[in-house]
Amino acid sequence: MAASEDAGMSNDAQFPAVWQGWLQQRAQVRAKRNFRRAETSREDLLDLSSNDYLGLAQHPAVRAAASRTLQAQGAGASASRVATGTLAAHRDLEEALCRYTGRAAALAFSSGYTANMGALQALGGPGSHIILDEHAHASLVDGAKLSGASIETAAHNDLHDLKLKLLANGSSGRHRTLVVVESLYSVLGDAAELKPLADLCAEHDALLLVDEAHSLAATTGGSAVAAAGLSAASHVIVTATLSKSLAAQGGAILFGGSEAELLREHIINTARTFIFDTALSPAAAGAATAALDLADAQLLERLRENTDLLARTLTSVPWLADRVEHGAGPILSIRMATPAAAVRTAAALRAAGIAVAVFRPPSVPDGISRLRLTSHAQHEPATLVEAAERIIRCIEKEEKA
Amino acid sequence: MAASEDAGMSNDAQFPAVWQGWLQQRAQVRAKRNFRRAETSREDLLDLSSNDYLGLAQHPAVRAAASRTLQAQGAGASASRVATGTLAAHRDLEEALCRYTGRAAALAFSSGYTANMGALQALGGPGSHIILDEHAHASLVDGAKLSGASIETAAHNDLHDLKLKLLANGSSGRHRTLVVVESLYSVLGDAAELKPLADLCAEHDALLLVDEAHSLAATTGGSAVAAAGLSAASHVIVTATLSKSLAAQGGAILFGGSEAELLREHIINTARTFIFDTALSPAAAGAATAALDLADAQLLERLRENTDLLARTLTSVPWLADRVEHGAGPILSIRMATPAAAVRTAAALRAAGIAVAVFRPPSVPDGISRLRLTSHAQHEPATLVEAAERIIRCIEKEEKA
Repeated sequence: MAASEDAGMSNDAQFPAVWQGWLQQRAQVRAKRNFRRAETSREDLLDLSSNDYLGLAQHPAVRAAASRTLQAQGAGASASRVATGTLAAHRDLEEALCRYTGRAAALAFSSGYTANMGALQALGGPGSHIILDEHAHASLVDGAKLSGASIETAAHNDLHDLKLKLLANGSSGRHRTLVVVESLYSVLGDAAELKPLADLCAEHDALLLVDEAHSLAATTGGSAVAAAGLSAASHVIVTATLSKSLAAQGGAILFGGSEAELLREHIINTARTFIFDTALSPAAAGAATAALDLADAQLLERLRENTDLLARTLTSVPWLADRVEHGAGPILSIRMATPAAAVRTAAALRAAGIAVAVFRPPSVPDGISRLRLTSHAQHEPATLVEAAERIIRCIEKEEKA
Repeated sequence: MAASEDAGMSNDAQFPAVWQGWLQQRAQVRAKRNFRRAETSREDLLDLSSNDYLGLAQHPAVRAAASRTLQAQGAGASASRVATGTLAAHRDLEEALCRYTGRAAALAFSSGYTANMGALQALGGPGSHIILDEHAHASLVDGAKLSGASIETAAHNDLHDLKLKLLANGSSGRHRTLVVVESLYSVLGDAAELKPLADLCAEHDALLLVDEAHSLAATTGGSAVAAAGLSAASHVIVTATLSKSLAAQGGAILFGGSEAELLREHIINTARTFIFDTALSPAAAGAATAALDLADAQLLERLRENTDLLARTLTSVPWLADRVEHGAGPILSIRMATPAAAVRTAAALRAAGIAVAVFRPPSVPDGISRLRLTSHAQHEPATLVEAAERIIRCIEKEEKA
């Protein structure tokens, strides 16, 4: 369809000066601070930057399942599930997620972002109190803000600070308290202590929401919540994404224990991002379901070995060792001297055929720019060692530049 | 992966009573008011409920394009575009959207919800003022709330009220004002007067954001903004969804005129739902690109004819005529006496092989429950007339029940 119209250049004069000045000023600030993100095209590089930890986005069985599901159930879901109902692909995915994690019920969303927003908004409202870890993902912060609950931030991974805040929050009979953490934090890659967190929440009559974005099908056992013995804990709510290890697009909320159905029904009826958003596409649901079948202990072990090898090689250099951050999962971060040095190093690595991500404000919780590397199960050990050595040489060179 | 753990039933006792009581009380309120949404399974019914207006979600060429794109570029996009770059599928889609709408630049998101949130949040902040039409979609309301801008609501489709608010908002030099409307409102199906709105905004140095969710590839000309002669208007920003007429999943922001690239770069650098969300999947991008090729004038004319036929048949009954709401697009709403009557009528129609949606609080802007019908290009006229007659009989019977 060609757009036919006669309104031409005259409209361009209508762009308000007050907006133009602000947009230009913001762009200048980004350029000056080296915070600007220029759009780049995806190239065929050694992938140390994506979240496709198990390499399943290109796996023939995952692609075949996505094709099969969309051929049978459509290219899109065409409406919200509350308007037109749940597709077989949604049920299959939710059952597969429950089998994989040992949880009792699941609900799929169109993204991890909307799953997190939906969970927090649905559990919020007047009378709810949300305590967020200070490194919590943007989607959790946005969901908390939209929820209408009172919000408080706890020091990162600090059980003592959380306990003080739970105590100060007072009598459990007056408030509904929800503590929000990530199993594995996305920038620094460090892990939360889930069992002590769950015990502390239970003690203070609080629910615990754990975002497993970076641990589902990416850490030993396939689920950090299951590994902590909490699959059946009714007061622990899990959110997850289908777009990282599960190689698709979308998100989910997982419920365990006696109140799983009550919580799921509550989310269906109150989460705005479930009610007012088109349901997950059949292709994405089919891909994630197939990925769950492939994400077995052997593949997870390969991922862990590759992560350890990458970390070992990078930290073998004394001047770099202290700057490498590495937790229980496939994320490694390297603190850089300046945002400019981070950008230059990533560009030099790209020219050498290696893709690493640059995390700068506002994508870092502490203002420190980083190279962020992700490990992948499908990489050959020799390739990884070679890449790590190249990374070390590039950092040395670019930070001196 | 089997979840292995030994934490058993004992955890169930930890669900906090304060949360359990609240969840149960909320469920009781829903049940009492007939607001409860029970989960249903998608069945093979005559589709008068989905937003797949052109029937393209099942079109062989759309499904083939989705499969082809995911086979070539992966089952998922694996990361945010700011981390790992833009896929060819994203570029192809954005170019196709520009060709189709006559706009100068486009940016794809993982959903229409996140596109709306991203646009409003990126244009907000201290010093911005957002004026929302009171029927604006949940995603626009959420985006405005998160933006940090001051927010005001204008009476629905009321140019005079909007003008008063723009005047009261004072000197344009002090504020950055953004007016937010939908081209076609999702519940009542009525249209906004885009040309007068754009003129009014230009006069008052305001930007105008138009959500084309229900008009892109669904109204004459394929775009309500293009039909109003505003494709090249730099102060008009368009958001759209890929999950309705375009048969896929995802959303987009479209920019026109002289400042298109400045705005697009601003969104890439500041929209949290672009920076912190996995990019649109190749399958969805491929499906929507193919759908744009098929959504030609002839198919749009078939949709218009079917909508007119459905409206004509329903309004031919005197007692029903006044209760049918119908605008420039494929949405028809029928006001119902009570939420219970709406639910009963939809259930009876489902049993008769016809899918219609029920919109109840909180999905209606005015608290009135409705049957919401959507017209589709692929339906046979005789089938539609028969369905409309069945709908009339069902409403009559169930409202007397």
